[in-house]
Amino acid sequence: MIFRRKLCTISRFSRICEKDLKVFEGILGKDAVLTEDIEMFTQDWTKQFKGRGSAVLSPKSTEEVSAILAHCSKQKLAVVPQAGNTGLVGGSTPVHDEIILSINHINKQFSFDSTMGILQCDAGFILQELDEKLHTFGYMMPFDLGAKGSCRIGGNIATCAGGLRLVRYGSLHAHLLGLTVVLPDEKGTILELGSAIRKDNTSFHTPHLFLGSEGMLGVITNVTMTAVPKPLSVQSAMLGLQTFTDCQKILRLAKSRLSEILSSFEFLDAQIFECLEENLQLKRVLPTETPFTILVETSGSNSEHDQEKVGRFLEECMENGWVTDGILAESAADAAKMWQVRESAPLATSRDGYVYKHDVSLPLEHFYELTEVVRRKFGGKTKRIVTWGHLGDGNSHLNITSEKFDEELYKNLYPFLYEWVVSHGGSISAEHGIGRLKLPYSNYGKSPAERKLCQNLKHLFDPHGILNPYKFLATTTE
Amino acid sequence: MIFRRKLCTISRFSRICEKDLKVFEGILGKDAVLTEDIEMFTQDWTKQFKGRGSAVLSPKSTEEVSAILAHCSKQKLAVVPQAGNTGLVGGSTPVHDEIILSINHINKQFSFDSTMGILQCDAGFILQELDEKLHTFGYMMPFDLGAKGSCRIGGNIATCAGGLRLVRYGSLHAHLLGLTVVLPDEKGTILELGSAIRKDNTSFHTPHLFLGSEGMLGVITNVTMTAVPKPLSVQSAMLGLQTFTDCQKILRLAKSRLSEILSSFEFLDAQIFECLEENLQLKRVLPTETPFTILVETSGSNSEHDQEKVGRFLEECMENGWVTDGILAESAADAAKMWQVRESAPLATSRDGYVYKHDVSLPLEHFYELTEVVRRKFGGKTKRIVTWGHLGDGNSHLNITSEKFDEELYKNLYPFLYEWVVSHGGSISAEHGIGRLKLPYSNYGKSPAERKLCQNLKHLFDPHGILNPYKFLATTTE
Repeated sequence: MIFRRKLCTISRFSRICEKDLKVFEGILGKDAVLTEDIEMFTQDWTKQFKGRGSAVLSPKSTEEVSAILAHCSKQKLAVVPQAGNTGLVGGSTPVHDEIILSINHINKQFSFDSTMGILQCDAGFILQELDEKLHTFGYMMPFDLGAKGSCRIGGNIATCAGGLRLVRYGSLHAHLLGLTVVLPDEKGTILELGSAIRKDNTSFHTPHLFLGSEGMLGVITNVTMTAVPKPLSVQSAMLGLQTFTDCQKILRLAKSRLSEILSSFEFLDAQIFECLEENLQLKRVLPTETPFTILVETSGSNSEHDQEKVGRFLEECMENGWVTDGILAESAADAAKMWQVRESAPLATSRDGYVYKHDVSLPLEHFYELTEVVRRKFGGKTKRIVTWGHLGDGNSHLNITSEKFDEELYKNLYPFLYEWVVSHGGSISAEHGIGRLKLPYSNYGKSPAERKLCQNLKHLFDPHGILNPYKFLATTTE
Repeated sequence: MIFRRKLCTISRFSRICEKDLKVFEGILGKDAVLTEDIEMFTQDWTKQFKGRGSAVLSPKSTEEVSAILAHCSKQKLAVVPQAGNTGLVGGSTPVHDEIILSINHINKQFSFDSTMGILQCDAGFILQELDEKLHTFGYMMPFDLGAKGSCRIGGNIATCAGGLRLVRYGSLHAHLLGLTVVLPDEKGTILELGSAIRKDNTSFHTPHLFLGSEGMLGVITNVTMTAVPKPLSVQSAMLGLQTFTDCQKILRLAKSRLSEILSSFEFLDAQIFECLEENLQLKRVLPTETPFTILVETSGSNSEHDQEKVGRFLEECMENGWVTDGILAESAADAAKMWQVRESAPLATSRDGYVYKHDVSLPLEHFYELTEVVRRKFGGKTKRIVTWGHLGDGNSHLNITSEKFDEELYKNLYPFLYEWVVSHGGSISAEHGIGRLKLPYSNYGKSPAERKLCQNLKHLFDPHGILNPYKFLATTTE
């Protein structure tokens, strides 16, 4: 049983040796095998997660990945797959001396069927590059992330990235059609799963198992998915509200009145605005201070129609007394100001010193209750407790700050906070995944039967457990 | 290896005996165990597929399903799960003497979060019942099928049903959030997979593996998924075109101009109109005869806006010369006439005598080429060769008719037709699945590695291979 072995020390893996490096150089060429100056691969961008790592391998093709994994499987060499290394939970960096398998140079093949809106490309393409390529066809990628300039599509798939437009275009499950995946078995089995057509019910729908698999089941080298028509009209509005109940009411109204064009429904509380002003001197956009602020965005094909819809929606919000202040962006500059405050929230909190970040999903009735509970319990012991997030998806980014890391606070916060989330029907990781960061809490709310199923799936795809060990499904932090 | 055992005769399963029936009566009560007058369960509605079947069990809860499957697993009794029994490939009827496990009475629990649009319900609910319940909240189910009055949501999930609105709302992968599933193992393991929130990246996304699994991996008893706001405005238009190239051009234009409101893009050739007129005396809707007809539907939240968008789209089609005739429905009665011809197509062809039906997906450039190839090759030997389908999804329902079943024609058509589809990048089953009907062709275009993966997954979920044997993954027709 793979799970028993995971309980053992890391000695179940071999150490990389000169002979292995020679094999890799034979497969990839000398330039694609690095053993020195590899810090940018062994550490994540937040500098929270750093492992030793032993070598960085940069294959250029699926076949090269296959040859690497076959060798590693036979030799029991642990491997961490890495794409843009922009994750937030330490899922793509080594913990000990794992070999880093970078897919960044698998980035040549690109094709797009502009009638069906179907994209097929290598997994190493940067999200923004893909977006720009699609723009020339009048299309765009169906999701958008802060990291789009450096994250890569293979990593997006492995994370099941969410982002800002999920309320409109759905999760990546809505778009994934096929994958090329290499398994970490002794053959380095290459699987071509799914197809470049929109409907195909001729097999188990295995590509979807790799969405959110965090590099645990195989290495993704090529992706087939749908893109969406680029909107010709984007409208933004910012609304000030007095109660969280009113936030829920206008979400419901937005779903009915803005329906097909609603593309973002973002939430900010008064405390994050204070933080933005104090730490970044960013002024609030609305003239009055309100306990809650909503940023609504629509994406459609006709600006006249969209403006009218948004205008009527705002009027109805005002008439009902659900919104006490509101601005509709009249220019791109207006909209940019609104988005600047939303997008600067992570930077603003980081200026406080240390940040206990969260990425939780909750049923809407508990969305802000969590923030209130944490304020009551920890209010005197922190610098600041703020919340922003994708309210339209029930995804809260509750952030707690202190001047520096406070171990006592940490011990009081966890597992209390995650237990509260799970006991209220939520998820401790809405979009970032488990990786290394949330490993100690990854079995919260999961039945033994589900854990066993996941272990069995892991064993089926990765018989020697060499792919991204010490992360999700590991039972100790080894 | 389960696969080896599948090659053996059906004697690998036990025969049901009095003792088993007593056990089932103990679990379910006497009324929920039938052994006589079970023809409506042993035969599908097309009367093409009929097995003996040995008993029909009608559990009312997940726990009862668990107790049944635990017993069947221990006793090696073969089981075919059945929901509405409306499938088109014989996937839900027994082949030999399998026990029929009907989920139709698991239909009590229903809840709906109308702010987040999340539905949770027992798997035995009829699709139309769910749709009607959601209407009272201003929502609807994200897919629509001809069989909606009798198909059930558990069966829809197991089939990964497509339907008429896929171009707008995406496949069921876009909507599935969680499932309760019972495994056919010796414990009758109950799995609660996923959650009732929109974003949850804390485990492998296992619910998606059951979409399109055709009752091979487990029995679905409860479903959590998103619903969509019910459109306040539905517009329909019928367009006449001279060439298939023009059909592709207007699909692209529709995606750009109707973008967020495009909900159907249906295709009919001149030959199906002839058939509708001859067999059902249904008149064509457009005043002139054209080689190709497109039925466009939009669903939106503002009828004024939608009419304007559709009007402009039609003008642009006319100005470009891509459309030579066209009507915009001005009333619900007008729209009903348009949809009547589209929806009567299957009945019209059946009146010819015998129908060789197809449900294939093709890259758009080959969509109608298939029909032309078949006409050239078999034109003299058939009564009629017609095509309609969901052009927006690349899904062609090519239908070939003859006065009665013609074995020589059958042998010439297959495997030729399916080989042609696969060699042109298509799927031999876009939405109906494999079941019994397409079993002989189910490995077309699949690599041995993918087949092995599917067999391994089957074995992981169903260690004794008792669930829906003789269908997908069986290597002989036993």
